[in-house]
Amino acid sequence: MRAPISPPVLTAQMSLNRRGESRGDEGFIAAKLADGRARVLALFDLKVPILPSDDGASACLRWLSLDEARFMAEPLELAFLGEDISGSPVFACNFAPDQIASTGTAADAMKPLVDLRSLAIQGVLAEAELLAAAQARALFAWSSVNRFCARCGAAVQAADAGWRRHCTACGLDAHPRMDPAVIMLISREDRCLLGHEHRFPDKFYSTLAGFVEPGDDIEHAVRREVKEEAGIEIGEVRYVASQPWPFPHSLMIGCWGQALSEAISFDAREIADARWFRREEVRAMLENRHAGGITVPPPISMAHTLIRGFVERAIGD
Amino acid sequence: MRAPISPPVLTAQMSLNRRGESRGDEGFIAAKLADGRARVLALFDLKVPILPSDDGASACLRWLSLDEARFMAEPLELAFLGEDISGSPVFACNFAPDQIASTGTAADAMKPLVDLRSLAIQGVLAEAELLAAAQARALFAWSSVNRFCARCGAAVQAADAGWRRHCTACGLDAHPRMDPAVIMLISREDRCLLGHEHRFPDKFYSTLAGFVEPGDDIEHAVRREVKEEAGIEIGEVRYVASQPWPFPHSLMIGCWGQALSEAISFDAREIADARWFRREEVRAMLENRHAGGITVPPPISMAHTLIRGFVERAIGD
Repeated sequence: MRAPISPPVLTAQMSLNRRGESRGDEGFIAAKLADGRARVLALFDLKVPILPSDDGASACLRWLSLDEARFMAEPLELAFLGEDISGSPVFACNFAPDQIASTGTAADAMKPLVDLRSLAIQGVLAEAELLAAAQARALFAWSSVNRFCARCGAAVQAADAGWRRHCTACGLDAHPRMDPAVIMLISREDRCLLGHEHRFPDKFYSTLAGFVEPGDDIEHAVRREVKEEAGIEIGEVRYVASQPWPFPHSLMIGCWGQALSEAISFDAREIADARWFRREEVRAMLENRHAGGITVPPPISMAHTLIRGFVERAIGD
Repeated sequence: MRAPISPPVLTAQMSLNRRGESRGDEGFIAAKLADGRARVLALFDLKVPILPSDDGASACLRWLSLDEARFMAEPLELAFLGEDISGSPVFACNFAPDQIASTGTAADAMKPLVDLRSLAIQGVLAEAELLAAAQARALFAWSSVNRFCARCGAAVQAADAGWRRHCTACGLDAHPRMDPAVIMLISREDRCLLGHEHRFPDKFYSTLAGFVEPGDDIEHAVRREVKEEAGIEIGEVRYVASQPWPFPHSLMIGCWGQALSEAISFDAREIADARWFRREEVRAMLENRHAGGITVPPPISMAHTLIRGFVERAIGD
């Protein structure tokens, strides 16, 4: 009997009601803009303004009214994120570095501006706020590098309240990008495979991961990446859970894979190390009491969900 | 006891060994180009050249040697797809409409050129050939609309044997795009929900589907799309299977969802109809013997896999 999996900390279940079917309706968006309850999350070069608690243990996003946001820059490129549970409209905008410079004191008054990834990893934002900010960050991370038409090179215009970019020169429509990535706990009986990437902090190990490529399905991407990164053959693959990860705009697809071989052969260009760890050693790493000081990713991450699932015998063979 | 799911017809298990870790290594690619066994799939405005059988019941891709491909146009923008089971290198290229015009008789000699989607739906290509062509089509559908840098508007250069596009002006790297899309069999006891889109042939019904958006996870995308398209609330969601779908570059994520409500309320801008069908009626549709002439998608599709899974009681509540 397998234990139930602890669900990921960050899922989209608390997210806004996006009203995606009405984004292209200008009358609908005009009514939302005229709603006195409307609020705006202003990002500053993708950083978010927060109100931290005195002890730093929690934080709230700092919201603006439409008038406050417009006071900073006009015209404002607003994206409609959706409606919150009370039905109030929620918008977002992003100020580019040159706009931040020109807003001067208004932007200064919004400090501290923090990196959303740090907030997510520290776990200091409420889930609903984190999700709204994640949605805004993924959208603007995409649109901030989509100012020109990739087909013809002409400047593009925002459309559908921020969810489409249209080229009036050649007619191409660009839609927000979500990059599917597989992240997998690979195990064989009592041991699991974890890797250390070059960019990781010292003594930090995580599950292997990689982007789904053209022509891949999820299961094939898992097998291909593990073979490329660690030289291990994978048999059965099972889907575990998924998570939006807006750095910049990934869809993390968490899986378990059964190793058919044990000999590790990794490509030093791809990763710095890959090793098998016994379940009890992984439990110590998860509980920050590993004798050698090895640590694993924080609770917000899909890697943590998968590693915890293995330790708790919710996933594995 | 639930029946096992019949796996999708199109999965990536038969696909090429991509050697993704070596794409950026110019010496590796030069050696592959020098390999006398190397072959090229030349696409013509994303259409594929085939050798059909006399009765049209099967077809083979028409492959070229590197010399034959270079005879048509020089320099050729080649993408490295990987190695086949014999270790032979496999490349692809795509001729844009203006290049096709300039190649003249050489391109004429490659006819018939056919749409890969039609070949897939008819099921006339062997799976390994379909996958190689799907990988090439997804890659070139992406690169053919990525000629300019979306951040700064400058022309970009192909890199990593076709798997990256680099802007020498601002330094931005663009990677092939895969759009994750959820496709879901929604059921409630003995009935399932199928929809008829405006673009569908008459009397053709399929499972609901939609793209995963920034901030979504897979389960949330299923619930959001079904709510938007049919007004139905969804409880449990289960992952079933996935499939690459290169039209133009989607990752189809097949799921089952449990309907918590029955009253359908659809947005006529999104779909033309949505209805509940009883399992035995769906079985008749699947077997092309429905009294009202209603049909469902062909075996190659994830929709078919899900509908068959429901009929065979492999998925459902």
